[in-house]
Amino acid sequence: MTSSPLLERLSARLGPKGFTADPVAIAPWAEDWRGRWKGAAAALLSPASTEEVADVVRLCAEARVPLVPQGGNTSMAAGATPDASGDAMILSLRRMNRIRALDADTDSAVCEAGVILADLHTATAEVGRRFPLTLGAKGSATIGGLASTNAGGTQVLRFGTMRTLIQGIEAVLPDGSVWNGLTALKKDNRGYDLKHLLVGGEGTLGVITAANLRLVPAVGARSVAWIGLDTPDAALDLLRMLEAAMGDAVESFELVPRVALDLVLAHVPGTRAPLAEPHAWNVLIEAVSPMAAPSPEKALYEALHSALGTGLAADAVIAANERQAENFWRLRDSISEAEKQAGPAAKHDISVEVAAMPRFMREGSAAVESAFPGTRVIAFGHLGDGNVHFNVGAPLGAGPEWQESEGTRVTSYAHDLVVAAGGSISAEHGIGQMRLAELARLTDPARLAAQRAIKAALDPHGIMNPGKLVPPAPAPGAGSLA
Amino acid sequence: MTSSPLLERLSARLGPKGFTADPVAIAPWAEDWRGRWKGAAAALLSPASTEEVADVVRLCAEARVPLVPQGGNTSMAAGATPDASGDAMILSLRRMNRIRALDADTDSAVCEAGVILADLHTATAEVGRRFPLTLGAKGSATIGGLASTNAGGTQVLRFGTMRTLIQGIEAVLPDGSVWNGLTALKKDNRGYDLKHLLVGGEGTLGVITAANLRLVPAVGARSVAWIGLDTPDAALDLLRMLEAAMGDAVESFELVPRVALDLVLAHVPGTRAPLAEPHAWNVLIEAVSPMAAPSPEKALYEALHSALGTGLAADAVIAANERQAENFWRLRDSISEAEKQAGPAAKHDISVEVAAMPRFMREGSAAVESAFPGTRVIAFGHLGDGNVHFNVGAPLGAGPEWQESEGTRVTSYAHDLVVAAGGSISAEHGIGQMRLAELARLTDPARLAAQRAIKAALDPHGIMNPGKLVPPAPAPGAGSLA
Repeated sequence: MTSSPLLERLSARLGPKGFTADPVAIAPWAEDWRGRWKGAAAALLSPASTEEVADVVRLCAEARVPLVPQGGNTSMAAGATPDASGDAMILSLRRMNRIRALDADTDSAVCEAGVILADLHTATAEVGRRFPLTLGAKGSATIGGLASTNAGGTQVLRFGTMRTLIQGIEAVLPDGSVWNGLTALKKDNRGYDLKHLLVGGEGTLGVITAANLRLVPAVGARSVAWIGLDTPDAALDLLRMLEAAMGDAVESFELVPRVALDLVLAHVPGTRAPLAEPHAWNVLIEAVSPMAAPSPEKALYEALHSALGTGLAADAVIAANERQAENFWRLRDSISEAEKQAGPAAKHDISVEVAAMPRFMREGSAAVESAFPGTRVIAFGHLGDGNVHFNVGAPLGAGPEWQESEGTRVTSYAHDLVVAAGGSISAEHGIGQMRLAELARLTDPARLAAQRAIKAALDPHGIMNPGKLVPPAPAPGAGSLA
Repeated sequence: MTSSPLLERLSARLGPKGFTADPVAIAPWAEDWRGRWKGAAAALLSPASTEEVADVVRLCAEARVPLVPQGGNTSMAAGATPDASGDAMILSLRRMNRIRALDADTDSAVCEAGVILADLHTATAEVGRRFPLTLGAKGSATIGGLASTNAGGTQVLRFGTMRTLIQGIEAVLPDGSVWNGLTALKKDNRGYDLKHLLVGGEGTLGVITAANLRLVPAVGARSVAWIGLDTPDAALDLLRMLEAAMGDAVESFELVPRVALDLVLAHVPGTRAPLAEPHAWNVLIEAVSPMAAPSPEKALYEALHSALGTGLAADAVIAANERQAENFWRLRDSISEAEKQAGPAAKHDISVEVAAMPRFMREGSAAVESAFPGTRVIAFGHLGDGNVHFNVGAPLGAGPEWQESEGTRVTSYAHDLVVAAGGSISAEHGIGQMRLAELARLTDPARLAAQRAIKAALDPHGIMNPGKLVPPAPAPGAGSLA
């Protein structure tokens, strides 16, 4: 239901670089990157400035036409894919890709929403700093998308998710007004924190157009180790021991079960086991020291030596060089790819309190495998964040249809376990479209009502990324006899 | 306009310990602790459990009777004082004073809203931990009040304000529903962050009934130093130098101008200057090391020795013992008291970006003193947080009426300077009633509209702490000819 006059006004405002209604040009951005969610859009809008974004939002708000903000289109939850109606327009931030300021003295960078994460990494390295958040999609993911989804990754342990790294934001609100909150104030008690509302808001309350980001010193040296051990409990004890011995030098602590390592070794060419014997559980550790500081290797060596002595660790190896370090990381980073080749799986991105995670992994895995005979749980990832990817592989021989049938029941069952443990059914990937029904089913009614009220208050016409994050309220009278 | 049936129902629900309508019992809680804002209340409600709070809120919501949540009643902005109409009831959280859980292994404490900060300090010390936030009112201030106002204090430099120390909260929302968000999840992307909305919300969106707080290792040793230097710029350079040399051991870095120290020495009995000669600026530093770690004194000594060598510092002394350390702190903590004895002043709790603070102090002070001849600026406090108390003393001989007349103009002028510098007119004290008009005058219209929309959405009947934090929308037609 896109009126032609609106398209003409948008086209005139944005010019040929900023506007297309050509279905061929739109198509790749109208589906999610895995090709599982296919939508349609009346136009692809690509403003080049905050003022252009503001005008686009205002015009669409007046015409009640929905907008789907989009960065690198790497959402794991179909959070940036329009629905199939073709009513919406995609609002791409990719042309807003300037780093407006980069200041090594104040350790801050002001980036427009379309700046690609890997480009920011390069720019900060050139001034002896780094932006300490990274993830697999860094070559496409944008600062705006990372901020809107409160992205995490493999370095959250020390520096936190996007939420803790964002010092200020600029955003266009759903009526087209611009809020400039870019100044990095350490203390500011002037009322409700809009920044924290928009971060993780998945574009449903407005469009983040720029962010002021915290930088940290560049890495001087890193030391990467692979450890074999018996239980997730021992892994958590090892993490606590390393933190006590090495302070915050440990930046990554990734848990890998034997079944995941075996899958990688079987399916990913050129990989080999780091340790002589297989172990029920493995941990990949990266310790880091800043420029001009001593390498963390000696401290890591001593701590691991002590862990081997007390039996906390069964075996351990420290990468002898960068190539070996990369090989260790490749084992961790290849798990998703190896899983894909091994057959269908129901995947869950869950969190519980850190201390509760080993027990959840033991008992939750046993419960799922007993309730769904033949399945096997592959739980791996960010143990130190209380966040693992709790994936359930289909029984041997199951076809791709398993995912939509039995897999859906497995997901409900696994999510019920998570909620019973006080955890979250979306630790880092967000809700998007994919987890909307599960969120509606499992969220505390008080919280759900508050979420809906906030959405309705700030976006009264429902034009900002509709159908994402906030489950629609039940129709009046639904479920009653009226 | 409090109906009698409501009072009866509240009295029946809360019992004699939880309910009083006796004006004598209510009076001390109906005015702010400095006695500058005097209100009235129909009753003082003191529920002892979350369920009782929920019932109170639900009953008052149904009757459209306003509630003013209150902790220790130590607000610096009259944020917990009812208006003079007597329509509202005070909702005291002081009876909810249980520490529900205290876990040294997971470094967390779950406190009810009425737990007094000093009591939490005692309890955490007993298990070898500490809660790293402190302020002058710690003997009265409660966790609920500190959370609702996102309190700061003198230790924010390293561990942040309440916002960063709160891992989860439990709250009663304005319809009486209870949201249990106490679980300390490090990653949780299930939608708008209610926690960050309620923290700093000054009780206008609901009542925080409990919080899950982050603990840190207990202090093993501390080292306190007093440094004399020439400019605020040198002070900031010294902070950066100490951070580079000592990591995050520096937990307090308080700036004291000569005029403030002179006031203290003149008005507070038993105080003496720490350095032989007076200096234009002084810094009080506290460096801390955890239990079982070496004392920070040697590192602090070496860093200060180097700062004296390069001329960054003009003179410096490290406290030789705890008594001397306490005496240094007493100089800092007595500034407000000394100011009071020196005559009227217009006080401002402001922040700008940390790097911009020295310039703001230089240029802002000169501008104010030139625009208001005879005044003198006393700016002191948390330089490392970009937050100073920018107080303007009245000309010699001015009477107490100065504050309400000329003082108000000084405040507008000072706030204009802060806003022009991209700063905040309320760094840590909040808005309450006191800064409401200034907030309305100076807030970005987009932000103000969003604040009002959020308030109206979550508290549609306006019963939660009305007249605080959110400036009312102008009446329809106001300012027009209609």
